[in-house]
Amino acid sequence: MAPILLNCMGNEHDDYIKTEVHVKNPHLDSMEEDILYHFNLGTKTHDLPRMFGDVKFVCVGGSGNRMRAFAQFMHQELGLLGDVGDIRDICEGTDRYSMYKVGPLLSISHGMGVPSISIMLHELIKLLYHAHCRDVVLFRIGTSGGIGLSPGTVVITDHAVDSFFRPQFEQVVLGKVIVRSTELDEGLAGELLLCSKAFPEQPTVIGHTMCTHDFYEGQGRLDGALCSFSTEEKLEYLSKAYDAGVRNIEMESTVFAAMCRVCDLRAAVVCVTLLDRFQGDQISTPHDVLVEYQQRPQCLVARFIKKSLGLVE
Amino acid sequence: MAPILLNCMGNEHDDYIKTEVHVKNPHLDSMEEDILYHFNLGTKTHDLPRMFGDVKFVCVGGSGNRMRAFAQFMHQELGLLGDVGDIRDICEGTDRYSMYKVGPLLSISHGMGVPSISIMLHELIKLLYHAHCRDVVLFRIGTSGGIGLSPGTVVITDHAVDSFFRPQFEQVVLGKVIVRSTELDEGLAGELLLCSKAFPEQPTVIGHTMCTHDFYEGQGRLDGALCSFSTEEKLEYLSKAYDAGVRNIEMESTVFAAMCRVCDLRAAVVCVTLLDRFQGDQISTPHDVLVEYQQRPQCLVARFIKKSLGLVE
Repeated sequence: MAPILLNCMGNEHDDYIKTEVHVKNPHLDSMEEDILYHFNLGTKTHDLPRMFGDVKFVCVGGSGNRMRAFAQFMHQELGLLGDVGDIRDICEGTDRYSMYKVGPLLSISHGMGVPSISIMLHELIKLLYHAHCRDVVLFRIGTSGGIGLSPGTVVITDHAVDSFFRPQFEQVVLGKVIVRSTELDEGLAGELLLCSKAFPEQPTVIGHTMCTHDFYEGQGRLDGALCSFSTEEKLEYLSKAYDAGVRNIEMESTVFAAMCRVCDLRAAVVCVTLLDRFQGDQISTPHDVLVEYQQRPQCLVARFIKKSLGLVE
Repeated sequence: MAPILLNCMGNEHDDYIKTEVHVKNPHLDSMEEDILYHFNLGTKTHDLPRMFGDVKFVCVGGSGNRMRAFAQFMHQELGLLGDVGDIRDICEGTDRYSMYKVGPLLSISHGMGVPSISIMLHELIKLLYHAHCRDVVLFRIGTSGGIGLSPGTVVITDHAVDSFFRPQFEQVVLGKVIVRSTELDEGLAGELLLCSKAFPEQPTVIGHTMCTHDFYEGQGRLDGALCSFSTEEKLEYLSKAYDAGVRNIEMESTVFAAMCRVCDLRAAVVCVTLLDRFQGDQISTPHDVLVEYQQRPQCLVARFIKKSLGLVE
């Protein structure tokens, strides 16, 4: 373990420090053991550097099934040896999250909502730190509701914003509110947009992504168990969001952006829109169309990874 | 469908209305179809009254595996016919949630955190409404961190409180903050405490439950990827929580209490403590002990259900 990392709490970083994944917790190095409880992994029970030391890309998404399918897809895309059926869930001792490794890529599920992804991110960043990973890039690939976009559009997020359209994430720490920036890596977003040129049939835009803590009332849906507003009030709110630059709505991007930024990790959010919220609330698109939509962020990120590895131009 | 239910938005309820599960959304009855997207169920594709009309008890918990085990356990406890291995996941077309039905009981997983359980609750309450269920009681059975209690203690929640120890839940609706009460059914909590007398080896208390949106910084843990406070500051916060009546910490109770209260559903939160947070942060208890702890809320709620059905005294 590089002792120079012990003192990187907000000090200047040299190039060496920048490349190795680090945590922002001075207590961690004095712990005899670190149990990553929700992954069912630990520093004493698992050889994390051996298992994960070569990881360069981490893709996270809500559904375990989808992240397994993505791992299998990437196994083929990267031309790796072995049977895709043999790719096993590294977190199989727990059903909190699923984790698959194919070559330099980790594919992990995070469930739904900020609290669920934040537990996963804490344990993922510690895992990458314990494993001495370097130059890691993180992607959240997911689904979302679009605002003023054709269903199936891929949105690359420049800023994740909260329900008040502010590019920030509020974290309560010991009963006090701490505000963190949710700006994402501009260069990475631009590179992903360039990659999207390879998929002319998939409309792709860069825009703000609104992250809410509720799927129904919080996103202005009229079809929840509770609803106290009118169709007009809903459309007024969505119009305000559109005018503020919001192009899609999901439930994890602010804390993902904030935590990656605090830990100096390059990160991107790439979500496909399943519907245009100006047109409705219910997701009634046929199953096979939804499946194709869900593959769009996967294809885009796959291309970026293959380009980074020199497998495509 | 009883037309009298259409106008129950905050008006006086007669006894009839009180018994049938209702929603607080005037838009719902004008919808031709209601797709419960995250359950993979719908009013046109499924005969919800036939499938769910006899439901009287709903138990929800974080993990799908645990809720399947609970369904199998209840199948035996209720002396139902058939093989427990045949109990199938009603939501098997999606991996967002798992749902099992055994007799009058639904057992459903809700993932981790307020947003995840809130999506489930919206769709569950709509499901119970569409199925014309009556006299339904809801239980959240889960795990938690204890404050000043021996690990393995069962806490029955009287009030769910937020990170500032307030008995309220803040819901953002169209960019405005709405505050809802998180008081739970006092009579139900008392009945559960009475049931606990049958398990003298399981310490059981009634107390406040703090619901946070983060497992690490939000609960004052020193072992996350980010931590900016000292051991002393952590202990000071936990002491304040204890003095405010908080006996355990988890991540779903406020929205569960608030939504059930708005919809006049009798509801209880019963969680076991896995550790005493005054003593530490990591969950390092042996697996078999954790499994036994996790069964404690299940046994307590099982006894309540059997008592309600006249199966035990």
